[in-house]
Amino acid sequence: MEFVKITSTQNDAVKHVIKLRDRRPREKEQLTVLEGYRELTRAREYGLEILECYFSPEHFLGENEYPLLETFAQEGVKVCQVAPFLLEKMAYRERPEGLIAVAKMKRHTLADLPVKPNGLYLVAEAVEKPGNLGSMLRSADAAGVDGFIICNKCTDLYNPNVIRASTGALFSVPLAEADNEEAFNWLKENNIRMLAATPHTDTVYTDVDMTQAVAIIVGTEQTGLTDLWMNHSDLPVVIPMLGKIDSLNVATATTILLYEAARQRNWQRPDWAK
Amino acid sequence: MEFVKITSTQNDAVKHVIKLRDRRPREKEQLTVLEGYRELTRAREYGLEILECYFSPEHFLGENEYPLLETFAQEGVKVCQVAPFLLEKMAYRERPEGLIAVAKMKRHTLADLPVKPNGLYLVAEAVEKPGNLGSMLRSADAAGVDGFIICNKCTDLYNPNVIRASTGALFSVPLAEADNEEAFNWLKENNIRMLAATPHTDTVYTDVDMTQAVAIIVGTEQTGLTDLWMNHSDLPVVIPMLGKIDSLNVATATTILLYEAARQRNWQRPDWAK
Repeated sequence: MEFVKITSTQNDAVKHVIKLRDRRPREKEQLTVLEGYRELTRAREYGLEILECYFSPEHFLGENEYPLLETFAQEGVKVCQVAPFLLEKMAYRERPEGLIAVAKMKRHTLADLPVKPNGLYLVAEAVEKPGNLGSMLRSADAAGVDGFIICNKCTDLYNPNVIRASTGALFSVPLAEADNEEAFNWLKENNIRMLAATPHTDTVYTDVDMTQAVAIIVGTEQTGLTDLWMNHSDLPVVIPMLGKIDSLNVATATTILLYEAARQRNWQRPDWAK
Repeated sequence: MEFVKITSTQNDAVKHVIKLRDRRPREKEQLTVLEGYRELTRAREYGLEILECYFSPEHFLGENEYPLLETFAQEGVKVCQVAPFLLEKMAYRERPEGLIAVAKMKRHTLADLPVKPNGLYLVAEAVEKPGNLGSMLRSADAAGVDGFIICNKCTDLYNPNVIRASTGALFSVPLAEADNEEAFNWLKENNIRMLAATPHTDTVYTDVDMTQAVAIIVGTEQTGLTDLWMNHSDLPVVIPMLGKIDSLNVATATTILLYEAARQRNWQRPDWAK
């Protein structure tokens, strides 16, 4: 298969991809940029709509890239070859792998989340660092949550660093974006027990029954949970820290809590992963 | 108290700190660079020998910096004020906090580790990313390991990014650096049961008794454990993954395993944290 080749920095498509590095145009156009073979295959597999794909064979790491490009072309994706220096300009990674795509962002609302009588949910308030949000998505995938609610977001979900750190979990885990009140009300209405992670309690997380419908609520890196969650959750829970350090990274704390829930539930797979 | 003030980029001390950004001079001189109030206070508290401290009050975030500098001066640390632009040149952080110190590296050998009849140990093979090693140190501190053995290291322990990501745990947790064989023999001699983390087993980590002397062995980010550990450990253990993603970050996996051990041990504090 032959593809159009772009060699000019003045090309509109090239300029557009570079523009999408910034949050504002991404949000305005509801588009994001994906990069690399693994990210693109996972995005496609989990149903993200890919519109355009640019490639530079000089950067390819393996031999799977051309079959993927042909699949894209057959599915109606606009596929163009670009000069190697252009791909490097378009890439956000330091060592680009020769594939960059433009994809439609998905909208994630509470109505999209499954409500299960014994569901496991994660609620994160105002996570700031894209790397932390990416890690939390990855742990949410691995621990098999039924839904992940991101409240009062401070970082945008389709930030390329979130996508990358999530290693594809952004596309697999059922997600909702909501403000605190909406999320709280949704959990209440659905009789999901709220466990608020905080250092200010003596109730150790492993002493709590997590086998029924439960939501684990984690706060920001700097200041923890806000009053709504602290005062109105069903139970505060603490992760003991046995050494000298006085705080855990929010993604680490999330992982510990989710894996305890998964253990208690005897490693039950979520419906979306069956 | 009045301190000497440096304003020239040609100053030898300034040039020396900048040189210590690179691994080779750090290892040759057995010196490292610390940065920021929290890192410096923790390093001092946990017994790292601090030799020199440079400061720029224009960058200070709070009011605790001067008392710390006076303590340093009284303890024989060489303390100098530097012009703000020089501090920015010397700093490795993007937003420097006005304090940079030169400290002696510690040597960490197996002989330094406590041997306890029911000790909890972590062994990490060839971790590559400083951020991962820092996170693992932080989890090792929080979960209260008795010792952390770093085998066939690929990143240097006193890399500023390790220090930073560890949030001080580099100075609190008992550490040893060793090659694989040394570490393996040390564990054998001390009757410490070796649990090798791997996807290639059906034995779930939570089904294993970790209340006696036990070492959790984790491999590299890319390729997992080498044959020595895979073939000669006492038991392979797996962390179930319930979603779509097929691998966990090594620091995340370490956290999950260590917190299960801490849970089984009923949150027993290590001697070094009592």
